[in-house]
Amino acid sequence: MMLLSNSTSTGVEDVNKAYGAPVWYQLYAPTAWAACEKLLRRVEEAGCTVIVLTVDSATGRNNETYLRLRPKDLKQCSACHTGPTIPSVHERRMFDGIDMTGVTSANPAITWEVVDRLRKATSRKLFIKGFETREDALMALDRGIDGIVVSNHGGRATETGRSTIEALPEVVAAVGSRIPVFLDGGVRRGTDVFKALALGAKAVGIGRPYMWGLGAFGQAGVDRVLEIIQGELKLVMGNCGTQSVSDIDHNYII
Amino acid sequence: MMLLSNSTSTGVEDVNKAYGAPVWYQLYAPTAWAACEKLLRRVEEAGCTVIVLTVDSATGRNNETYLRLRPKDLKQCSACHTGPTIPSVHERRMFDGIDMTGVTSANPAITWEVVDRLRKATSRKLFIKGFETREDALMALDRGIDGIVVSNHGGRATETGRSTIEALPEVVAAVGSRIPVFLDGGVRRGTDVFKALALGAKAVGIGRPYMWGLGAFGQAGVDRVLEIIQGELKLVMGNCGTQSVSDIDHNYII
Amino acid sequence: MMLLSNSTSTGVEDVNKAYGAPVWYQLYAPTAWAACEKLLRRVEEAGCTVIVLTVDSATGRNNETYLRLRPKDLKQCSACHTGPTIPSVHERRMFDGIDMTGVTSANPAITWEVVDRLRKATSRKLFIKGFETREDALMALDRGIDGIVVSNHGGRATETGRSTIEALPEVVAAVGSRIPVFLDGGVRRGTDVFKALALGAKAVGIGRPYMWGLGAFGQAGVDRVLEIIQGELKLVMGNCGTQSVSDIDHNYII
Amino acid sequence: MMLLSNSTSTGVEDVNKAYGAPVWYQLYAPTAWAACEKLLRRVEEAGCTVIVLTVDSATGRNNETYLRLRPKDLKQCSACHTGPTIPSVHERRMFDGIDMTGVTSANPAITWEVVDRLRKATSRKLFIKGFETREDALMALDRGIDGIVVSNHGGRATETGRSTIEALPEVVAAVGSRIPVFLDGGVRRGTDVFKALALGAKAVGIGRPYMWGLGAFGQAGVDRVLEIIQGELKLVMGNCGTQSVSDIDHNYII
Repeated sequence: MMLLSNSTSTGVEDVNKAYGAPVWYQLYAPTAWAACEKLLRRVEEAGCTVIVLTVDSATGRNNETYLRLRPKDLKQCSACHTGPTIPSVHERRMFDGIDMTGVTSANPAITWEVVDRLRKATSRKLFIKGFETREDALMALDRGIDGIVVSNHGGRATETGRSTIEALPEVVAAVGSRIPVFLDGGVRRGTDVFKALALGAKAVGIGRPYMWGLGAFGQAGVDRVLEIIQGELKLVMGNCGTQSVSDIDHNYII
Repeated sequence: MMLLSNSTSTGVEDVNKAYGAPVWYQLYAPTAWAACEKLLRRVEEAGCTVIVLTVDSATGRNNETYLRLRPKDLKQCSACHTGPTIPSVHERRMFDGIDMTGVTSANPAITWEVVDRLRKATSRKLFIKGFETREDALMALDRGIDGIVVSNHGGRATETGRSTIEALPEVVAAVGSRIPVFLDGGVRRGTDVFKALALGAKAVGIGRPYMWGLGAFGQAGVDRVLEIIQGELKLVMGNCGTQSVSDIDHNYII
Repeated sequence: MMLLSNSTSTGVEDVNKAYGAPVWYQLYAPTAWAACEKLLRRVEEAGCTVIVLTVDSATGRNNETYLRLRPKDLKQCSACHTGPTIPSVHERRMFDGIDMTGVTSANPAITWEVVDRLRKATSRKLFIKGFETREDALMALDRGIDGIVVSNHGGRATETGRSTIEALPEVVAAVGSRIPVFLDGGVRRGTDVFKALALGAKAVGIGRPYMWGLGAFGQAGVDRVLEIIQGELKLVMGNCGTQSVSDIDHNYII
Repeated sequence: MMLLSNSTSTGVEDVNKAYGAPVWYQLYAPTAWAACEKLLRRVEEAGCTVIVLTVDSATGRNNETYLRLRPKDLKQCSACHTGPTIPSVHERRMFDGIDMTGVTSANPAITWEVVDRLRKATSRKLFIKGFETREDALMALDRGIDGIVVSNHGGRATETGRSTIEALPEVVAAVGSRIPVFLDGGVRRGTDVFKALALGAKAVGIGRPYMWGLGAFGQAGVDRVLEIIQGELKLVMGNCGTQSVSDIDHNYII
């Protein structure tokens, strides 16, 4: 299953076509409701059945790794590279026909009112991605949210706090079986997948691993990364005697 | 005491003869019962009194250390090396006269039914090697198993889980004195032996240490490894005031 | 807010003038009460509203980092450098007109009697800096102290003990909301500030970070250090949904 | 206070003379009682008031650090070095006039019977050095021992177990104030001394630090090592407000 955000260079319709089925849509809510609603309608019309509102990367962070690795000279990238650079909001296909004048593409001051408004505005499944506490999970439940992704944006949003695998149990304990809880952040191995599922996640997401595969070998690299993770998951499932993914439960936690 | 598996290049009869006494037999159950039974009969006839069914390496693992250390070129080993390579199942003496067509030499989908069938098929002592939980230990007890080896195949089978020394106490607590519990995995020192015995193991197994001795100095290296471990065990026994191995018990745990 | 000590090369009046407002005064109590009282009066006359008595660096330490980094030859610095060296007590402007003959500028045998005498001698706010235990905090409370700075002098005073962030909760629990508790030591990030405030500190102090900025880039470096820490604090506040510093409380502790 | 053992190259009388007062005597019990008793009488006659029976290094250890650092060639030291080597038992002055034929200078099978025999044989204070458990401490108490040194021979005797600072509290808790408990092993800093005293040790011993000082600078190095440790102890005592060593107690443990 693929999660596509509005930061992409390609429109959701083209992605769905290439993917062969509607992706889940990872929504960053723009600061203007009109823009947010237009994105929502377009995504619904493209057939996406699940909208995943991202709330964990609202205010950014101090990207020191990036700052350290940046070229240290004063050259302009465009002086040498003529191809496309990181697209601006006006060049991103998801914002075609949306007036983004004075609008920030991801709301740094997002509140529960945005959640309520989105909940009323769509009959599709509405998930929230970026919770790490039982309190937020329970508030989401009260507002009719259909699912939660425990996430810290791969450690980029709240990197001095708990890891998501440490936060998962309290969220699962809070929501029980009422809505599904997913997890991303730190999933590198099939054994990581097994552990997250055993701790109560219904599924996990990966980010960096497929990026690494993509950067190194393109499409083949992405395929290989998925193959490795799935292969390792099968090995550990075999060693634990779990014949299907649904057999992986809390009994495998010591 | 030696544990010999069916992955060896030499038949059990020749090993017993060289060893001067019947070894314990480490059985990997082939997927076909006929093959499994033939192995069992041959081992029984060779005089082995203990059959140790291995269950912890059923589905293999992602051998990254090996993959990283492999030659990175595309040469075929056999282009330079003319001597014997790792024997195929057809070249392993333990499979002589056994039809292995379509049969995997170690069953990746081994279940308790295989254990029950083996239990009925032999009056020899039947041990299971590769448990790390009280649940499995108790199920083994119910099925009339005579002993358990707490093992994770030297950390190769379930390497992101607990070490065997951490898993040992719960297994010992579960089976009490009804059947003996052994341990392998991570035993490098005489002090490791002492600790495992103090935590309730009746004996320990070693794998890598004798291999290292063998690789470096052949037979003399294996002898020296055993000498070092036994010497260290005597030293720690002296310092703890334990005059015999049977004096090492839970009183030496803080 | 700036804390200025009597170890400075510049008088408090000039600092207040440059700063644009009275600083808080970090008092090291000289061994002679007359000297101590003169400092106090001068600081009061300069308009400082808070006197912070420092008690945690009374007896010094074995400065091994400094000793290791010192030039290893026998040269005298003054043979090459003609400018001002570290000012002696006679060259420090805060001691102008104070007879320091036979007086140590910081009392290595400071007791509660000094605290009591200072408490009676001034109607300004009197804080104590350098506590790490509930016992000391409660004794300060009994003596009418107005605030506490949990500090180990940046790890230089009691560096094999607890960090100040570990000591903070017991001090906060002891004094409750009766007097404010501050913290310094180890604050390097906006997330450190957030954590200290969530654990009950009213504010935090920084030492090394602004020194590093000063050493590398002078005034601009100090500005940038404050900008980074404040920026990071805003980011983590945004990610946690705390709209003002006063919203950061124990609910953000897991 | 100095502890002198029978492994020295110099007799106790000469050491006492140079030291200016009787040392405490660290007795390794030879396997023959006659030899043990002769040592005891000689030490008593030399005026030593405390005999410290060492029990923690009875069976030695696998000295890998030493083995790794040994010259790797096959040269004989005596081919180049003509001065004295490590003295044999016959060259050690403490064994003058004692028949050591067939006698091991330290009993690897020492039992409580040796302790009882020593207890009856001397009216001097008899300590035992080398305990790490409450059980041994209580047995010593029952046998009329006057003091205990919690020791693991500087980590050489039982180096995969607890450190002595970790073992100290249970020994102190067991014997209470009935007999003094000392500690050695791992004392490198004045803060280490403070911590051991706060945890209930009456005094601490050092081994390696003075050896390092001796190896590097001879007598001056030993003096400097003691100076550093005592200086650091004074600093931490000042920072903790303890005016004498007897003020250091459990109140300084968090």
